[in-house]
Amino acid sequence: MHLHIDASRLSSELNALATFSDTPSPSVTRVVFTETDLKARTYFKSLCSAAGLIVREDAVGNTFARWIGTEPDLPAVGTGSHIDAIPNAGMYDGTVGVLGALEAIRALKAASFSPRRSIELLLFTSEEPTRFGIGCLGSRLLSGPKSLMAGEAFKDREGKTLNQARQAAGFTGPVESVALPANYYSAFLELHIEQGPLLEQRGVGLGIVTAIAAPASARITIEGVGGHAGAVLMPGRRDALLAGAEIALAVEAAALSTNSIDTVATTGVCQVSPGAVNSVPSRCTLEIDVRDIDQARRDSVLEKIVAACREVSTRRSIPIHYQLVNADPPAQCSPEIVEAIVATCQAEGLPYDLMISRAYHDSLFMSRIAPTAMLFIPCRDGVSHRPDEYASPEAIALGARVLALSLARLSSS
Amino acid sequence: MHLHIDASRLSSELNALATFSDTPSPSVTRVVFTETDLKARTYFKSLCSAAGLIVREDAVGNTFARWIGTEPDLPAVGTGSHIDAIPNAGMYDGTVGVLGALEAIRALKAASFSPRRSIELLLFTSEEPTRFGIGCLGSRLLSGPKSLMAGEAFKDREGKTLNQARQAAGFTGPVESVALPANYYSAFLELHIEQGPLLEQRGVGLGIVTAIAAPASARITIEGVGGHAGAVLMPGRRDALLAGAEIALAVEAAALSTNSIDTVATTGVCQVSPGAVNSVPSRCTLEIDVRDIDQARRDSVLEKIVAACREVSTRRSIPIHYQLVNADPPAQCSPEIVEAIVATCQAEGLPYDLMISRAYHDSLFMSRIAPTAMLFIPCRDGVSHRPDEYASPEAIALGARVLALSLARLSSS
Repeated sequence: MHLHIDASRLSSELNALATFSDTPSPSVTRVVFTETDLKARTYFKSLCSAAGLIVREDAVGNTFARWIGTEPDLPAVGTGSHIDAIPNAGMYDGTVGVLGALEAIRALKAASFSPRRSIELLLFTSEEPTRFGIGCLGSRLLSGPKSLMAGEAFKDREGKTLNQARQAAGFTGPVESVALPANYYSAFLELHIEQGPLLEQRGVGLGIVTAIAAPASARITIEGVGGHAGAVLMPGRRDALLAGAEIALAVEAAALSTNSIDTVATTGVCQVSPGAVNSVPSRCTLEIDVRDIDQARRDSVLEKIVAACREVSTRRSIPIHYQLVNADPPAQCSPEIVEAIVATCQAEGLPYDLMISRAYHDSLFMSRIAPTAMLFIPCRDGVSHRPDEYASPEAIALGARVLALSLARLSSS
Repeated sequence: MHLHIDASRLSSELNALATFSDTPSPSVTRVVFTETDLKARTYFKSLCSAAGLIVREDAVGNTFARWIGTEPDLPAVGTGSHIDAIPNAGMYDGTVGVLGALEAIRALKAASFSPRRSIELLLFTSEEPTRFGIGCLGSRLLSGPKSLMAGEAFKDREGKTLNQARQAAGFTGPVESVALPANYYSAFLELHIEQGPLLEQRGVGLGIVTAIAAPASARITIEGVGGHAGAVLMPGRRDALLAGAEIALAVEAAALSTNSIDTVATTGVCQVSPGAVNSVPSRCTLEIDVRDIDQARRDSVLEKIVAACREVSTRRSIPIHYQLVNADPPAQCSPEIVEAIVATCQAEGLPYDLMISRAYHDSLFMSRIAPTAMLFIPCRDGVSHRPDEYASPEAIALGARVLALSLARLSSS
């Protein structure tokens, strides 16, 4: 098959998608269900329709664009990623796996390839936990278990529930309809930038992911006592920010205490109320992310953080509420899907590395309902979640090419 | 003179003013030049006009309501305070000194008192530093020195300058026109809740302030390096929040190190970018407030904070920028004005305490251009800058009464 990936068209679509942002270029901010997110989705859907794909959306905005195969009743081959972006992020995280997959499908069509299984491109809702405090919301719900509670259980910082937010965005069906039926996909494959430095350092253009690290996150709410910064004397203070500062430092210490390079722990959110220079902080909210490829070691870090909360609460006489938001198990990728990508690379004579993913992806949840793997491409200096995140058009095109050939292989089997 | 303070009218006006808020009752949030602030000003001006006062506004929104005396060319007697409120504040801080003074003037009018000097009620713009990071903006500019730069030098967190914000709010004259001419006021007297517990503890209804503590504030900007919370390994991190956490704890330690109950230091603002749970904080901004009645001791605390910034910056390899926003000298109140209030209390047989103010007030700046003093009334548990801030209608009415009689005395001299 003569396959032509149009790197220039793909770059220009990535650039166009990046203009849907609530912060100025090169920074990208696209939080789920904002007007900006909805406009970006409209742009994506128009590209899918132009490519002749059948588009549908589910009750939480997961978007499916299907190329019907010659045996449409067989389980389909899925591919895709997300387009939401944390505040002041870059333009490649997630989007490369969405628009790169679209380009892969267009290239297969142009090459007159005819898939036996349908090939379906997914745009997952809210891979980033920015708004609802939990990552991979869309793929989490796709992978079940069906939960009648999900729409009310997830709330943003303003107290708006997932149900309120999705309905305001026009996604109105029942949340329990989102979970996919068994055997919906025969394979799922996600293209993504590495978000780490290894491929670039080794000079290898392709990474085939064999496992995804186990993430956990927690929200810590510290209820101190506020007051006027001039009038409340030091001995009487119950300063919520100072308790939060001690906990953030304990999170760092807990990660370092494992002496393993694979343990990371981050306090990414620290919000202070009332947040005025002349007012003692009455309330502080922290959001914490802990990851490891070893689940037991990760959980031991969480335990140290809980112990620190308890110690700080007692010493400072401040109530501290610790809530484990999620603690997902690590995912093993499907050996069959990994093998299909390996075979593709070998057939093309392309060097590749087998690697683990330290970052969190929708594939973590897709692996619960379908044989799943991921394909990584290098990004400059391993930088992600920043405006200077960068992957070259050539690197992206190579990823799209291997994705296309792998989808062709998987859809024919 | 038979003087009748209408405590019920005054309470109902305070309640009405509290409805102009960006947070729900009982919390009050009224940040300078917001739509809510402008609506509250309109309400205040309508009350002044109804009371027969001549209203004018200056180029930054300081509002003057004048009762013309029989000798209108003499320096006037000033009184007043502010109505802006930090996020989630209460309804008495500042407002008691504005609406209480209006009630005092109305009571003097009703008693057919005729002032020799004009009596002028002031509403100061932005006593609270919430928006521009510096307190007493209006009175600071009223008290000069004339600065052509002021309108551009002060910026809010979104980068909007004072000039942009005031002009958008309709205050368009040159900033340098704000400074008052010499001998504009013969006296200035501000009524305020104590914002501390002493009057309540002693069972005394009136505090006459003889000095105002010396406040200083600083803004600390920490420029770390962001990245993905899963992919950036711990040894490579330059986490801005962790540096900020160490500095906030150093601020507390510096205040405690003086071993003086009169030293207070607060990190009231801690803002983290990008502020996502799965992103290493790239930037952290702290705003710090340090106060003491002893200026040298206060400045020694500031030095310790600077040293901590330097140490943390070196150890964590993170650039930290320390900016001293203001370090105002303490103010001594005018013995003559204090004596006039004392004489008023004695003539009425009312118990009073002489005291210092630990909080920051517009009077600090008015004392630079006019003989100034303050009159405190108790507030429950000394609480301020919180929704449960409370002063009883009787306590407020007593303050308004002594203010009225003191204004009568000062305007006759």
